[in-house]
Amino acid sequence: MKDQHRLHSVLPRPTTATIQTGRLPIDQSLRIDIEGDTGDLLSSTIDRFINRLAKRTGSIIPVQLPNATVFSQITIECAGPTERVQSVNADEGYALIITSKGARLTAANALGVMRGFETVLQLVDIDDAGFYLPAVDIDDRPRFPWRGLMLDVTRHYMPLIDIKRTLDLMACVKLNVLHLHLTDDQGFNIESRKFPKLHERGHNGAYYTHDDIHAIVDHARDRGIRVVPEFDVPGHTAAWFAAFPHLAGYPGDYTPDRWYGSNPRNKDPQYCPAMDPTLEETCAFLDELFGEMTALFPDQYFHIGGDEVTPHHWLNNPAIVEFMNTHGFAHPPALQAYFNSRLVEIVRKHGKTMIGWDEVLHPDIPKDIAIQSWRGADSLAEAARQGHPAILSNGYYLDLMYSAEAHYSQDPLTGAAANLPPHQQANILGGEACMWSEYVTPEILDDRLWPRLAVIAERFWSNGDVSDIDNLYARFPSILRHLTWDGLKTEPTRSMMFERLTGGSPTDTLRTFAECLEPAKGYARRGYMTTSPLNRLIDTVPPESLAARNFARLCDAPRENAAAIDAHLRRWKSTLPDVTELMTRRALIKPYLPVLDQLATVLDIGLTALAYLDGSAPDGWVDEQTPAIDEAAKDIAEMTIAIVPSIRQLVDTLHSD
Amino acid sequence: MKDQHRLHSVLPRPTTATIQTGRLPIDQSLRIDIEGDTGDLLSSTIDRFINRLAKRTGSIIPVQLPNATVFSQITIECAGPTERVQSVNADEGYALIITSKGARLTAANALGVMRGFETVLQLVDIDDAGFYLPAVDIDDRPRFPWRGLMLDVTRHYMPLIDIKRTLDLMACVKLNVLHLHLTDDQGFNIESRKFPKLHERGHNGAYYTHDDIHAIVDHARDRGIRVVPEFDVPGHTAAWFAAFPHLAGYPGDYTPDRWYGSNPRNKDPQYCPAMDPTLEETCAFLDELFGEMTALFPDQYFHIGGDEVTPHHWLNNPAIVEFMNTHGFAHPPALQAYFNSRLVEIVRKHGKTMIGWDEVLHPDIPKDIAIQSWRGADSLAEAARQGHPAILSNGYYLDLMYSAEAHYSQDPLTGAAANLPPHQQANILGGEACMWSEYVTPEILDDRLWPRLAVIAERFWSNGDVSDIDNLYARFPSILRHLTWDGLKTEPTRSMMFERLTGGSPTDTLRTFAECLEPAKGYARRGYMTTSPLNRLIDTVPPESLAARNFARLCDAPRENAAAIDAHLRRWKSTLPDVTELMTRRALIKPYLPVLDQLATVLDIGLTALAYLDGSAPDGWVDEQTPAIDEAAKDIAEMTIAIVPSIRQLVDTLHSD
Repeated sequence: MKDQHRLHSVLPRPTTATIQTGRLPIDQSLRIDIEGDTGDLLSSTIDRFINRLAKRTGSIIPVQLPNATVFSQITIECAGPTERVQSVNADEGYALIITSKGARLTAANALGVMRGFETVLQLVDIDDAGFYLPAVDIDDRPRFPWRGLMLDVTRHYMPLIDIKRTLDLMACVKLNVLHLHLTDDQGFNIESRKFPKLHERGHNGAYYTHDDIHAIVDHARDRGIRVVPEFDVPGHTAAWFAAFPHLAGYPGDYTPDRWYGSNPRNKDPQYCPAMDPTLEETCAFLDELFGEMTALFPDQYFHIGGDEVTPHHWLNNPAIVEFMNTHGFAHPPALQAYFNSRLVEIVRKHGKTMIGWDEVLHPDIPKDIAIQSWRGADSLAEAARQGHPAILSNGYYLDLMYSAEAHYSQDPLTGAAANLPPHQQANILGGEACMWSEYVTPEILDDRLWPRLAVIAERFWSNGDVSDIDNLYARFPSILRHLTWDGLKTEPTRSMMFERLTGGSPTDTLRTFAECLEPAKGYARRGYMTTSPLNRLIDTVPPESLAARNFARLCDAPRENAAAIDAHLRRWKSTLPDVTELMTRRALIKPYLPVLDQLATVLDIGLTALAYLDGSAPDGWVDEQTPAIDEAAKDIAEMTIAIVPSIRQLVDTLHSD
Repeated sequence: MKDQHRLHSVLPRPTTATIQTGRLPIDQSLRIDIEGDTGDLLSSTIDRFINRLAKRTGSIIPVQLPNATVFSQITIECAGPTERVQSVNADEGYALIITSKGARLTAANALGVMRGFETVLQLVDIDDAGFYLPAVDIDDRPRFPWRGLMLDVTRHYMPLIDIKRTLDLMACVKLNVLHLHLTDDQGFNIESRKFPKLHERGHNGAYYTHDDIHAIVDHARDRGIRVVPEFDVPGHTAAWFAAFPHLAGYPGDYTPDRWYGSNPRNKDPQYCPAMDPTLEETCAFLDELFGEMTALFPDQYFHIGGDEVTPHHWLNNPAIVEFMNTHGFAHPPALQAYFNSRLVEIVRKHGKTMIGWDEVLHPDIPKDIAIQSWRGADSLAEAARQGHPAILSNGYYLDLMYSAEAHYSQDPLTGAAANLPPHQQANILGGEACMWSEYVTPEILDDRLWPRLAVIAERFWSNGDVSDIDNLYARFPSILRHLTWDGLKTEPTRSMMFERLTGGSPTDTLRTFAECLEPAKGYARRGYMTTSPLNRLIDTVPPESLAARNFARLCDAPRENAAAIDAHLRRWKSTLPDVTELMTRRALIKPYLPVLDQLATVLDIGLTALAYLDGSAPDGWVDEQTPAIDEAAKDIAEMTIAIVPSIRQLVDTLHSD
């Protein structure tokens, strides 16, 4: 289909889309007509659309200009009202037909209109006659009804403004669930009016007031996003015990944890805290607290966490051990299952449906309880097989610094789930990307989320066969541009962070140098506190270097691309003297001198290998490089040199000669 | 003095400052002690300082870390309380002594502490050991007590968030007055609860509610900034008459003006509106309205405008003419003087001191009335000579697109004012930069204000002999960095605006090309409405091209800099093919093809002139270039080619051979 590349900028890819011939001008004569249902939500949706269109085009776009004689008309056909509280099964589909005569957006409710407007905004283009929409036929609906982001706001509190911006950006890529991880060992970051000591003693720097929560819920609702709160029990609860130590499974003088990683690695029972699930008082307390909290969050689902319960508290407390014996609980998971059955009652009493992490899954738990799988595709499939609604988070941990490609290749319906019969597959509602915030401050939140979250959003929305990786990366500039119009601040923030690293000296050289580097993957960082500054090179460079990725593509065909590869290597090498000098003078980058040394080594190996492409490599040279390449492939100062695999590939090319 | 360049980043320059030997570390052990007065204002000042320091360093800086054993201590010695309503004569001086043992900031009140904190933040540096403050002795106080910005929020309404950001940035450079031009022909942009029709019918897209005004006043107060409101009467009042046509000097069916420039150029009386100053009802109305508005703004001064009253209404209205005859008013200015005497009574009745533009100056007006001079240094001096408090705005009109250098060279105490005796000079309180907003949307506000407003701020604060132009420009990067940490968004906005121009194509080439261009100076734009899009190249490039300025410096010594000049010319020339192609394809830059043609011509002339530096120019060649250079020196498509004077200089070099 000709001109199909005009759909390039639409992410997630629509279910079906066909470019037609023609253009619809977007100018001050634009008029929006509404047919069918009108309502507050639709009206605010249209206002926001107009404002965003005005921002992108730099124009003041009146919905109806008094004296305009020519109209570009967009007709919104909204079949019916929108649920007061958005449900998991809400219809988000829409149809969009644009011709040179006008556009028509048809949807069952305001949610579909919202999703359609995102597509319209991504289609806006400019030619020599002005802004316009290309003629197109689109029919679009999501593959999964649950497309979320779990945001940990305890390890670092995220101010309201950052939450709102994140909701704006999530809406851009048609995500529909924000799961807020509100409590953990490090913080109880939400106001409780029933138990004010919880936030007063338990918060990590700041907490959300009830007004803040209302603001978040309203902002999300206006964007077609559900807000699911998580109160993680019975583990991950040190901050709770700062207020109510008697609820702990083990007596102690608790404070919110200021270090990371103490649970479950730390063997001191006081620092692997878990609630005492045997006390009626614990259940009475949670009943009252959850009563308050379920009233704050209108969503049907209420997340009780339930993950990573360390048994030290329980097994060291004679009363708990006796309770287990009396009730025939052979091991701590059985005790947790009992506790979960109590939680089910409490949550149900308050009119909500419980959701928990993997560990909540147990044969006795009611089938309506939803399971969020962080451990893998197998546990997801098992939950679905047992008849539970299930969502996948394994493979979507954005804090682990993996590439967009790695996340894109993960699919809720692959692995064990692929072999389930359809009625069990239907239990898989979708997934949630997870952003644990040990190493994420509000300053770097955008960089750590985007564009990788957009990639996951496409995985959750688009057909399962949408999987062209190179095409995905080619669409990054346009999706980042769209997100930036709606508030994404990655680039300006990164500029200032680089200036912080150089102390105001020019940053170009350091930025070029840093193209070769990425933060080390997985759980590579150690020894941090909640108050540790996150202001070094590792915090400044993106999780994935697109320059390194492009370089890797060149190295796939080293002979054809020899000149380009050479230019890249020399460009990076040319930065080394300046960067060395800068690193010795500036405290925040000084720790990376060993990285620079390793990089210098592999750049030289790469340049030498290039020179040997003519077959002139001395005998044994290739094998001699292995130790140095292996060394450079290791994490150094929490960083990884992203071009090492490409250098290895270059060298191996000679081997195969 | 060695290391005096470390003061480079401090703007405005302190009264006296001496760098000493030593460094005070800035880290998580920082502690702030307060001596003398404490109070709400001081406490919020310190909180904001800590937050800003944390942002710049990327650290969480607790005021007091529980287990810290080593302290970097900053002692704040605040001698006394701060006035509840900041007066013109408030003491803003401070002393700052930093040694390797600690820092001491001494001031008479919280305002001085605020000013001192700005200096501290600008001094923060980083070396191989971390962030620190250099040892320094500073004694600093402003030259003028009134250092302001007049912001026109009627031609384009500026949302609260933009006003707040502007206040933040003004505080960075120690400005202390925000003068809000709230009403004009195009809009009555403030809520009146006494006369709601005023804002309902008179607003230009939006208006400030009372809550908004409280928020602005509070935000300003926290930053040591006075807010002076202006209600411009009796001219510039078309928007008022949309609500109350009977107050107009001439009957008509009024609406807020949607075009610019109708007053005073348009001769149709209905569009040069002025209030009927002869009606008692006019005065009664203003009495009631000003009663409401003076209660909203705590500042002592209340601005009644008074500028550019066009006499058409009055002279075409027989009743007004008869009133003039009866009272012996020979001409309209005499009638306005009568009206002003009534305004003086009204403003005084509500406990305020009146301020007005030049035209208010009249022998009969009380001496406490302040005069804001927009017409020139002569009228400023005349006001001061007559005993009026006077402030200068002439020469500080940021909307006219003049260079930082042009504004910097303007001084309230030069010209006629220089010859006044000291007791009359003392009447000159300072000045206000003016930003009329016909061609300023919220999107480009930051670019249109900064860094030129910082330059004017230094003129108002620092000693009159601080006048090194090249040094001023050399300090731009550091001052822009400081402003960016506090919210300045010029660069990210410009990036997105360039992407809008190219429709998502790469912007580098267009940006390089645009280095040669500036918006035409003065009142060069015609035919715009309040709803006209401001989204073209003229709106995207900065008022002053620093690249063009640097090029001009090179051309001051063409032989020495021949290679560098050649490189610049070739770099710009290399953009022409791509930019030509882009301009033919994109509507927002298509109008600039004639500019490109002229630029191509002068680039070639420049390159040829360079080649002739060896004396090889043919006879007459130099003179033959004059017509082409003259042509290129004209405004084209509202733009000016900023490198033309340099090209002329290059060619003239050959002439003088």
